Amino acid sequence: MTTTVNTPAPNPQGLAGIVAATTALSKVEGNLGRLIYRGYNIHDLAKTSTFEEVAHLLWAGHLPNSAELAAFKTKLAAHRKLSPAALSVLQALPKTAEPMDVLRTAVSADGATGEISGTPTLDQAIMLTARIPVILAAFARLRSGQTPLESRADLGHAANYLYLMTGEVPSEAQERALNAYLVMLADHGMNASTFTARVVASTQSDLASAVVAAIGALKGPLHGGAPSKVKDMLEEIRAAGGKEGAEKWLRGQLDSGQVLMGFGHRVYRTVDPRAEELKGMAELASPQEFEFASYIEDLALRLLGEYKPGRKIYTNVEYYSAVLLGSLGLPGDFFTPTFASSRVAGWTAHVLEQAANNRIIRPESDYTGPETAAFVPLAQR
Amino acid sequence: MTTTVNTPAPNPQGLAGIVAATTALSKVEGNLGRLIYRGYNIHDLAKTSTFEEVAHLLWAGHLPNSAELAAFKTKLAAHRKLSPAALSVLQALPKTAEPMDVLRTAVSADGATGEISGTPTLDQAIMLTARIPVILAAFARLRSGQTPLESRADLGHAANYLYLMTGEVPSEAQERALNAYLVMLADHGMNASTFTARVVASTQSDLASAVVAAIGALKGPLHGGAPSKVKDMLEEIRAAGGKEGAEKWLRGQLDSGQVLMGFGHRVYRTVDPRAEELKGMAELASPQEFEFASYIEDLALRLLGEYKPGRKIYTNVEYYSAVLLGSLGLPGDFFTPTFASSRVAGWTAHVLEQAANNRIIRPESDYTGPETAAFVPLAQR
Repeated sequence: MTTTVNTPAPNPQGLAGIVAATTALSKVEGNLGRLIYRGYNIHDLAKTSTFEEVAHLLWAGHLPNSAELAAFKTKLAAHRKLSPAALSVLQALPKTAEPMDVLRTAVSADGATGEISGTPTLDQAIMLTARIPVILAAFARLRSGQTPLESRADLGHAANYLYLMTGEVPSEAQERALNAYLVMLADHGMNASTFTARVVASTQSDLASAVVAAIGALKGPLHGGAPSKVKDMLEEIRAAGGKEGAEKWLRGQLDSGQVLMGFGHRVYRTVDPRAEELKGMAELASPQEFEFASYIEDLALRLLGEYKPGRKIYTNVEYYSAVLLGSLGLPGDFFTPTFASSRVAGWTAHVLEQAANNRIIRPESDYTGPETAAFVPLAQR
Repeated sequence: MTTTVNTPAPNPQGLAGIVAATTALSKVEGNLGRLIYRGYNIHDLAKTSTFEEVAHLLWAGHLPNSAELAAFKTKLAAHRKLSPAALSVLQALPKTAEPMDVLRTAVSADGATGEISGTPTLDQAIMLTARIPVILAAFARLRSGQTPLESRADLGHAANYLYLMTGEVPSEAQERALNAYLVMLADHGMNASTFTARVVASTQSDLASAVVAAIGALKGPLHGGAPSKVKDMLEEIRAAGGKEGAEKWLRGQLDSGQVLMGFGHRVYRTVDPRAEELKGMAELASPQEFEFASYIEDLALRLLGEYKPGRKIYTNVEYYSAVLLGSLGLPGDFFTPTFASSRVAGWTAHVLEQAANNRIIRPESDYTGPETAAFVPLAQR
């Protein structure tokens, strides 16, 4: 189209290579396999930090000391309950609804009660981040005929989520593993859902609208992926004879042109730095499930090398995410929603960043339709 | 950030001048004050076409003949009812909720029932478009303690909406005026909400997720504007003595650095072509309210010329939208939702276009944070 400002630079290719925003939150270096949050290497954060520490880092700009962390955890814990509006939504929706759709609707309902309106604030970000795991666990229990549990203020964010989902306080290893997952998935540059949240925020809309939009974008398999399909794949291989039948099963997939779930990523041209850490954490969470998954990974990489020579294909973040989340007792259709429960820290941090120095994000389009069409009134058509 | 594909072109200025997608749906020529839908000039469409004809044009690519239109109207009318999920949402949310938040939540609930999942389809677009006015009118009545009305299949889309909102079948002039409004607001190139919908769709997410996201973006005053504030302004001027006190009131605003609501637009550097038509339609809908609004418009333009010499400021689409919608009996906080009930035709047409030839829309970001930060474990912070 004719633009009124600049000469448009045609880029109908999904804005690849176009800088849409500046951010001080995270940097993805696909060539180097490096991911940093505010300068901190993801490997350092993943090994010992909790989700709360990293959310604080993203929002406040620095890692908290013990006193700051204690105050911050208390604040988060205070918001760990279901609003009446969200509970009504959970009860109204069919039990067969997809958890991502339920989450999108419940967060939208929370945004309609007046608590999360106007200019986005840090308090609103904390509230939304605290509530998402509660919404998810409540739906998980309601759909199986159970009553939602009350959050426990003595548990951290990760442990409380597992408690709400399973009814059991997780082991230290399980809690550590989930923290590592939540830390590593919390932000990732200008990914599609984060970009969506920023576009919505750039209209001066509110935080709930931005997060609801981001949930919808994360739901798309080209972005949030299909981690539950990794679980399905591993289960199918087990059913087809386990390790013994694995090579035959994988070759069958490749021979019929199917992709193997959990391998390859658009941004990283080397090992995804998160995949390495997730692998270690999956082993920590369940050595037994890890052993099988690791065997299948090695086999799949060998076969991919054989079937697609010259193509650098690596294990992506989905593979061990699925192994890890599955071994923690989460149902497959809660994998992507659990991703959302982590990424909401990044979404909200980006919205606050956008709001602090805003300009509406409004690109151009290139019109390819007819220039003129002669109008004929209905009666003469 | 370091990109893996191209050299990034820095554009942190809201993607201004960057082409994000190709579209055969509409073209905005800001310099010429020209807007076309698939080649048809908006002036031709606004004068006689109905919303149904234009939705058909956007979706199917051509204006319907009488038989096509009849079949299409029947199809739309069949979907004009509230789903149980949406009704539950309307009942659960506070009566004080903003209608845009209610709409976002009810559409999200409709997206969770399984009717609008998977690859976006035209049937889903028709269903959503038919339901939005029903959702809005039901909330308008519920919040004032009234029972929602049933849609009437003998009425067109515009007339049925006014009937559901007010309980009265509109006059021909009112129906024509609302049709013209719905026709003119149905699409507008790569605006922020349409862009949001396309970004969400580009992840292969579903139509409901895309429309829910777009509603959130339209809610932002930098995009959907604040048409109800035009109404407020006109009411304040009336209260301050009407025509006689108008100049003093307007000068008071300008002297204190306030903007006058309803003037100026980012894209158009001349008269917004929709503003002209809306002016005519506002006169048709209510000659009396028009007379006053037109007097204030002339006065405001004269004063703007005096206060901001050299700046070309024109009446924007919001001004007569507000006059028109107000004179049809719609409450001020239903102006932007009514905009959404029109734009959903464009949103869904863009989503279908995006899905038909998709590539994920994923720009880059430019990292401005620290390159390295030395990690210190919590105990030593």
